[in-house]
Amino acid sequence: MIVIMKPGATNQQIETVVKRIKESGLDFQLNTGSEQVVIGLLGDTRSIQDIAFRSYEGVDKTVRISNTYKLTSREFHPDDTIVDVDGVKIGDGSFVTMAGPCSVEGLDQIRESARMAKAGGAKILRGGAFKPRTSPYAFQGLEEEGLKIMRQAADEFGLKVITELMDEAHVDVVAEYSDIIQIGARNMQNFKLLATVGKTGKPVGLKRGISGTIDEWLNAAEYVAFAEKSPVIFIERGIRTYETATRNTFDLSAVPIIKKLSHFPIIVDPSHGTGVWDLVTPMARAGVAAGADGMIVEIHPDPANAWSDGPQSLNEKNYLNMMKEVNVLVKAMEEIKAIQK
Amino acid sequence: MIVIMKPGATNQQIETVVKRIKESGLDFQLNTGSEQVVIGLLGDTRSIQDIAFRSYEGVDKTVRISNTYKLTSREFHPDDTIVDVDGVKIGDGSFVTMAGPCSVEGLDQIRESARMAKAGGAKILRGGAFKPRTSPYAFQGLEEEGLKIMRQAADEFGLKVITELMDEAHVDVVAEYSDIIQIGARNMQNFKLLATVGKTGKPVGLKRGISGTIDEWLNAAEYVAFAEKSPVIFIERGIRTYETATRNTFDLSAVPIIKKLSHFPIIVDPSHGTGVWDLVTPMARAGVAAGADGMIVEIHPDPANAWSDGPQSLNEKNYLNMMKEVNVLVKAMEEIKAIQK
Amino acid sequence: MIVIMKPGATNQQIETVVKRIKESGLDFQLNTGSEQVVIGLLGDTRSIQDIAFRSYEGVDKTVRISNTYKLTSREFHPDDTIVDVDGVKIGDGSFVTMAGPCSVEGLDQIRESARMAKAGGAKILRGGAFKPRTSPYAFQGLEEEGLKIMRQAADEFGLKVITELMDEAHVDVVAEYSDIIQIGARNMQNFKLLATVGKTGKPVGLKRGISGTIDEWLNAAEYVAFAEKSPVIFIERGIRTYETATRNTFDLSAVPIIKKLSHFPIIVDPSHGTGVWDLVTPMARAGVAAGADGMIVEIHPDPANAWSDGPQSLNEKNYLNMMKEVNVLVKAMEEIKAIQK
Amino acid sequence: MIVIMKPGATNQQIETVVKRIKESGLDFQLNTGSEQVVIGLLGDTRSIQDIAFRSYEGVDKTVRISNTYKLTSREFHPDDTIVDVDGVKIGDGSFVTMAGPCSVEGLDQIRESARMAKAGGAKILRGGAFKPRTSPYAFQGLEEEGLKIMRQAADEFGLKVITELMDEAHVDVVAEYSDIIQIGARNMQNFKLLATVGKTGKPVGLKRGISGTIDEWLNAAEYVAFAEKSPVIFIERGIRTYETATRNTFDLSAVPIIKKLSHFPIIVDPSHGTGVWDLVTPMARAGVAAGADGMIVEIHPDPANAWSDGPQSLNEKNYLNMMKEVNVLVKAMEEIKAIQK
Repeated sequence: MIVIMKPGATNQQIETVVKRIKESGLDFQLNTGSEQVVIGLLGDTRSIQDIAFRSYEGVDKTVRISNTYKLTSREFHPDDTIVDVDGVKIGDGSFVTMAGPCSVEGLDQIRESARMAKAGGAKILRGGAFKPRTSPYAFQGLEEEGLKIMRQAADEFGLKVITELMDEAHVDVVAEYSDIIQIGARNMQNFKLLATVGKTGKPVGLKRGISGTIDEWLNAAEYVAFAEKSPVIFIERGIRTYETATRNTFDLSAVPIIKKLSHFPIIVDPSHGTGVWDLVTPMARAGVAAGADGMIVEIHPDPANAWSDGPQSLNEKNYLNMMKEVNVLVKAMEEIKAIQK
Repeated sequence: MIVIMKPGATNQQIETVVKRIKESGLDFQLNTGSEQVVIGLLGDTRSIQDIAFRSYEGVDKTVRISNTYKLTSREFHPDDTIVDVDGVKIGDGSFVTMAGPCSVEGLDQIRESARMAKAGGAKILRGGAFKPRTSPYAFQGLEEEGLKIMRQAADEFGLKVITELMDEAHVDVVAEYSDIIQIGARNMQNFKLLATVGKTGKPVGLKRGISGTIDEWLNAAEYVAFAEKSPVIFIERGIRTYETATRNTFDLSAVPIIKKLSHFPIIVDPSHGTGVWDLVTPMARAGVAAGADGMIVEIHPDPANAWSDGPQSLNEKNYLNMMKEVNVLVKAMEEIKAIQK
Repeated sequence: MIVIMKPGATNQQIETVVKRIKESGLDFQLNTGSEQVVIGLLGDTRSIQDIAFRSYEGVDKTVRISNTYKLTSREFHPDDTIVDVDGVKIGDGSFVTMAGPCSVEGLDQIRESARMAKAGGAKILRGGAFKPRTSPYAFQGLEEEGLKIMRQAADEFGLKVITELMDEAHVDVVAEYSDIIQIGARNMQNFKLLATVGKTGKPVGLKRGISGTIDEWLNAAEYVAFAEKSPVIFIERGIRTYETATRNTFDLSAVPIIKKLSHFPIIVDPSHGTGVWDLVTPMARAGVAAGADGMIVEIHPDPANAWSDGPQSLNEKNYLNMMKEVNVLVKAMEEIKAIQK
Repeated sequence: MIVIMKPGATNQQIETVVKRIKESGLDFQLNTGSEQVVIGLLGDTRSIQDIAFRSYEGVDKTVRISNTYKLTSREFHPDDTIVDVDGVKIGDGSFVTMAGPCSVEGLDQIRESARMAKAGGAKILRGGAFKPRTSPYAFQGLEEEGLKIMRQAADEFGLKVITELMDEAHVDVVAEYSDIIQIGARNMQNFKLLATVGKTGKPVGLKRGISGTIDEWLNAAEYVAFAEKSPVIFIERGIRTYETATRNTFDLSAVPIIKKLSHFPIIVDPSHGTGVWDLVTPMARAGVAAGADGMIVEIHPDPANAWSDGPQSLNEKNYLNMMKEVNVLVKAMEEIKAIQK
């Protein structure tokens, strides 16, 4: 970390900063440049908030040099982490598809969804059982019953299960019925939930927050990784911007950035990333080409009658067509990876 | 709600939409304008998601006409709700100040903060006891012990207490020690927590989410209000934008908008709204002038050694000076309210 | 356009709105739904501002149904427009690369850039001759001399030229030396410049504004298209958001949206879209897969000594590697287009 | 400026950076901290782009310490600049109101607007004569004729004139008829226009760009100030964010920030800052309280029939009421300024 003093900062002000650095058990280097004094902190500054020194008189700004995350960082773990979901590998260079409805609505619907998912080549079934919604007047989910029938449907078609954990109180039941536990966008900084899920040993699908920076996302992953039990799978799902043509702005540059900064895999969610079904296929293709390790996509046997997220869900025909296109690009990416070596 | 069909939508497509409307128990009105057919839904559309019809073929877009919130809306409750916090009234035309440190750090610190708060004219003591932070390597709060000593300090100086509830599991202990329960920005859409806190009967200070729209905020308040037990106090604390000169962009226009759309009071948080201590005073003044019912502000006996949020905390001298300025404007606003009548 | 009245709007207020509609030569349809009256305007509302009625008392909001752009819209021009740049076709299903430095710095640099561009398979040379910068203390461009030497270099290597027009006063000289005239992000809503460039007959590369919505971009294209002389090539170059890990947030969903709403081609600019050279290649790949008709990319013989935009420029080795990867994906997309038919 | 090397950067990479620094005529200081080498540049780095070094291999990031603007900075000009508009002083501690319609529509309309403006206490008449709009199908302004009749109306009521310059070609005619030349939000980074207007000697009202950062705004002011002829008046008019309840998000924290960083005055524009007439009055009040030197506000004798911006324009009654409230706060602020001394 670097502390930059204001032009004209007094020696007294500089000494106060230096004193605090020493009290924190760190060393320092003083640089008296032309106009503004710059103080470099030497040592492990991870436990110091980067804004800590900004309340001192005479301080202009502070700049963090090294990351605050360590277990998540590629710096200390240069090789890719391959997440093994009961035999399905994520991050090994393949492209894994997770597909299913937004909400589990009943046995017929989830079985039909599982059949569709499998037919298109997905390896993992997605579906939500706990669905608190933006209005208290809307549908709230089937809860544990939903988890059971999703598990049953997945098993019937040889699929793994990913589902969202929204509440610490449900961690055991969600862990029991699922293979990957998803943390939703609204909980990206629910640090207690992150710590809890990180102790389950199950892989954790960590969605980027609706206005989460990539740096905050990496720090959220650090919370999950802290217990050194559960690996993380990053899920890019779009961010909130001023543009209203899409539900979110799908930030595909997050894929190569996460690959550069972390060893954990990253998949993309073109359904939430766009919010409009006819944009899902081109954005799924773009996700493959950006280098993602997989995708999670909303499909439904009858989107027009889905209880939630119908507008961004693919019906069977559109889903199967998308998967054909995705497969062509997956092969092309294999060729590209061979070129890169 | 209005459903707008695409140019060239077929009769079949229109009939499919109409069929769904009828199945929902609603009536409709068909408008065959020049280029695009428009279907108006008649009846209570609150339980229908506004995007429900967008997954139908031939549908261009949908527009919601009436609000999805009712108990929060001024439409059904024209008079201002005055929140009575054990004798301290919020929303009655006065301006109530809540002041205190970001984190409760120990008995001396919170007692000294309470003394300062009282000296400046604050009626309510703020402070956080549960402080999960963005990095797992940082300070996490004193928890229940923190609540106890904050209550003790508040009682000693005749102050009420506002503190944040972050987790359903703590609802009883937080309710026991506090007079207003705060829901933080990251939990604005933690719907289960909203429903839980709404049943306590304690007033709920509902912070706007870091990227929450005003419409989402009103719907979040509806979750709290749903049990018809706890009144809501809206807290504007800035939103995330591209500007980095401030920690957040303080959206003071939320004050008159909330006043127009809801009967519940709204206060402002210039500390989080700016993130920089020397901007707090001008933005507190602006909050009074915008018509807020009060403010919540971070103060600390020694900001440079605060465990958290030091850079945006006021020391005693700056806090007392701010309160002098705020009081001048509070009087001016009384004069203005007299003019308006 | 639809005008939605407030709950409780008076007959008088409704009649005032109706009167204005009639004065505008339009017909209307009155819908007296359950709570709020809705008035539909019938006829060509293109010349009416969509906010015009919002200043009337009793009006809640207005909603535009049909687009305000016509010549740009696919609705009135269903077939793709193929832009013929002196033999190089854009929008015919191929993928056209435009490459070159940010600034033209001198004959040697631009010749070397042209050689590199050609070697990688680019058909069009890019480069800026007028470079007013964010600080008045920085380099401002070679101006007409720059245009001349860029033309000379392009001709030597059989390339076409794209360069930016920043000022009406230069329209003749820019048109003389270039094959495509670029309008930069800062001028997306410089309507006079748009109208001027639209009369040249040269294809116009229209960059999306730094905070431009897709709807505003389509309306800006309408200004260019208004004279029915110059075709438009949309250029997605990223938008400003809260994320700081990239220079801009590259919004690839703009590609399929523009394809859906307009008949003009769209290319992507992964250099400005990311601002970081090692993100350019993955985002170029993603652009191909999203369905773009081409890309524009910054290359430089010696990025570390470039006068501008060095950090996002590719050197020869990285550029040639990128083009190999892009070519694999271009072939894959041909296969996909065959599947789609 | 500081250059931060990546962990593991080689000596060769460090030497390349150092070589470039020396070639730029600057000195440097090398800091070999625990993990990452930090190189501080010594001397005037104003002419070096802050991203220049980021294209070097081994460089992690660069941080600018001192500002790139000088004539605009309070650092080199500690005293407030008071702008004298032919006797009307801006920045001397008073609060100056500029009022008038969005567009000059005709002599009667502008005379009536001037009468209203004067009646409310405004000293300066605003109005636009060149009005290129977002759609080519809409009204484009009265141009020079509009300027003439605005001047005539202003003179009749003893008002000064502020109007927008959109095009270098009109600089003489706009300068002839106006007292303050406004640069609109879309031209905040039209650097050639900024340089041109800065040579007129007329005060320049510089609107913040729709997505302009405060740092970019200060650099834009530097362009105007560069000729050392025209003083700048900053105009905060709201920024584009994800929130749609208002036309823009009115960023009042810009007022104290600009006051801290620059010696030039700043006024606020609550009309564009909100876009909704019934939010203008509370936001005008908040602007006074935030410490602005004045405001610019849209008024119209008949907003419902205004050619542009009707929804955000105040009619006579609402304008006069607003001015009463503003005046109460202006007096309160005088009292506060006395306290501060």
